[in-house]
Amino acid sequence: MLVDGRPLRSIRFDAAASAVIVIDQRELPHALRLVALESLDAFATAIAAMWVRGAPLIGATAAWGIARQMRRDASDRALDEAADVLLATRPTAVNLRWAIDAMRAHLAPMPPAARAEAAHALAERICDDDVRTNRRIGDHGLGLIRAIAANKPPGARIDILTHCNAGWLATVDWGTATAPIYRAHDEGIPVHVWVDETRPRNQGAALTCWELRGHGVPHTLIADNAGGHLMQHGRVDLVIVGSDRTTATGDVCNKIGTYLKALAAHDNGVPFYVALPTSTIDWTLGDGLAGVPIEMRAEREVTHLRGRLDDDGARVAEIAIAPPGTPAANPAFDVTPARLVSGLVTEHGLIDANAAALAALRTRCEAGERR
Amino acid sequence: MLVDGRPLRSIRFDAAASAVIVIDQRELPHALRLVALESLDAFATAIAAMWVRGAPLIGATAAWGIARQMRRDASDRALDEAADVLLATRPTAVNLRWAIDAMRAHLAPMPPAARAEAAHALAERICDDDVRTNRRIGDHGLGLIRAIAANKPPGARIDILTHCNAGWLATVDWGTATAPIYRAHDEGIPVHVWVDETRPRNQGAALTCWELRGHGVPHTLIADNAGGHLMQHGRVDLVIVGSDRTTATGDVCNKIGTYLKALAAHDNGVPFYVALPTSTIDWTLGDGLAGVPIEMRAEREVTHLRGRLDDDGARVAEIAIAPPGTPAANPAFDVTPARLVSGLVTEHGLIDANAAALAALRTRCEAGERR
Repeated sequence: MLVDGRPLRSIRFDAAASAVIVIDQRELPHALRLVALESLDAFATAIAAMWVRGAPLIGATAAWGIARQMRRDASDRALDEAADVLLATRPTAVNLRWAIDAMRAHLAPMPPAARAEAAHALAERICDDDVRTNRRIGDHGLGLIRAIAANKPPGARIDILTHCNAGWLATVDWGTATAPIYRAHDEGIPVHVWVDETRPRNQGAALTCWELRGHGVPHTLIADNAGGHLMQHGRVDLVIVGSDRTTATGDVCNKIGTYLKALAAHDNGVPFYVALPTSTIDWTLGDGLAGVPIEMRAEREVTHLRGRLDDDGARVAEIAIAPPGTPAANPAFDVTPARLVSGLVTEHGLIDANAAALAALRTRCEAGERR
Repeated sequence: MLVDGRPLRSIRFDAAASAVIVIDQRELPHALRLVALESLDAFATAIAAMWVRGAPLIGATAAWGIARQMRRDASDRALDEAADVLLATRPTAVNLRWAIDAMRAHLAPMPPAARAEAAHALAERICDDDVRTNRRIGDHGLGLIRAIAANKPPGARIDILTHCNAGWLATVDWGTATAPIYRAHDEGIPVHVWVDETRPRNQGAALTCWELRGHGVPHTLIADNAGGHLMQHGRVDLVIVGSDRTTATGDVCNKIGTYLKALAAHDNGVPFYVALPTSTIDWTLGDGLAGVPIEMRAEREVTHLRGRLDDDGARVAEIAIAPPGTPAANPAFDVTPARLVSGLVTEHGLIDANAAALAALRTRCEAGERR
């Protein structure tokens, strides 16, 4: 999407530099730092240390990590090692595994000499497919927003609440939850976004606000605590969030706090939609609450915060918000039961969040793959 | 309660210094700074700028503000002016008005020459009454905790979640939501507290953690987003929060985000109790959602955070977490409908959160006042 008028993607291969360029998202919103990834370790670090984050971008980064490794060593052993190293970086990300498996399945049967070129082409295709997928998610979500606009006075603002960053920074472009928002904005529908700050890592405040600002979409930052109050007072027309993993029954694993917003939406009759590429559906899982392992992250993410010191040359620093030595717990995700989800916005259209609708979607996806 | 082994109250009259001593709570948890309040302006600033916060402590501070003003000028005009100045400091705090009205009703009929001494005595009594009230809230809440402990294996941890700071720092001593916790801990029941950080002002991280640490109560800091997940997994036995204002039908106005926790408690069958002195009940209000004005505070509280720079001599500084100029909305409170409240823990016992039970309580309170 646009950053101050110029288009940018979260990951791209730069032929001149012969390197993969990503944004070190830890520096946002304070600095836009583009980083060239070269070694396998650099790709693994970029994923593990969250220079890149978001299920689709993690998958794309892993695909490029394998592709670049194949330039150096295209042996079976190097392919296995690259897959193993990258797979170990983030436990919850289902399409990290998806991308790595796709690369391996494509490359393993080939003679090593053919792998580098084929891997490059497949990594490019995974990125292009992601862009196309998100654009389609945007098409289907745009329909929802148009329908809400049609029920309001002409020109009335459409208030959309989102949690965390399921934006273009989390994908290759467009984003998942944000794709309908960008589509609607580009079409002239007056959308306004309530951006949950999204503690503890503040991806809403840092990334979603930065994205929306760059593309010119009106938005307002709120504390994670505020969404329920806004919904009680009719200030939210639609909630759209992303998903790290969705089960075959429609349970949604997403950033911690999503469940609380889903409860508030349900209590106030606000539509609650989850935007996701079907590649993030885990067809092997039924009950998300019992089945999805929740990553516990560092306590320091809760007790400390990074930000810009306005009184000290805009230096980025970390502050402690609790007494020294305060113990903290940091579950990174929660599971929103399907009963609270109005629908899933996928590249194949709007899907009800239940086992029957998802089984039908699976049949369509598998038929598509066989073609 | 205890601070590193020594008892401390949030407000007290120091006869030697001939001044009222409060804690500048903005400096917590990084520094314990005791401040002597002398002029009427100092009392008003202490309330408006949130050196002191919490409904009961605000009331006690206003009472002392009037009492100290009466030393300097005990005229009718000075009494009215002091009441007006103090009343204007915080719009939502119902027992700010309660304390000021009590002082004025007591003093106005007296000859000015008698007012200074009478005001001093009444301010002392308001503080002592608050301590006694909170201790009684603690008694009744302790019953709840004992009942939960009785249903668990001997010695099993009781997990209590609280939001914001309804602790002794928000009252004169004991706190409201924390009184049952301190009573249970002092009695040897193994309580553990999940402390919501409570964005945007972080009173949970800064104040509740500091309090519990000082008194030796085990606790864990969590992001406001995490409580629902913990409840889904059976990690919360009881939620206890405070209330800034409770309606005659049992709707509870409390720190923003309380409503989201009440929804999660309801969805998971976790008891959700609200601890409050009856002085914070607004008998004139029915529907809290329609009737309670919600204070909108500064955007900067959302876009910026204060904390301790561990890399810079523990200096307390403010960081920005969003792009420069990001708009923010900052509703300070929300309303939890009575239907989500398991009960009210008052100094008169456990009360159901409905109009009939509250009407009966009101009759008891008024009968008590007439005696």
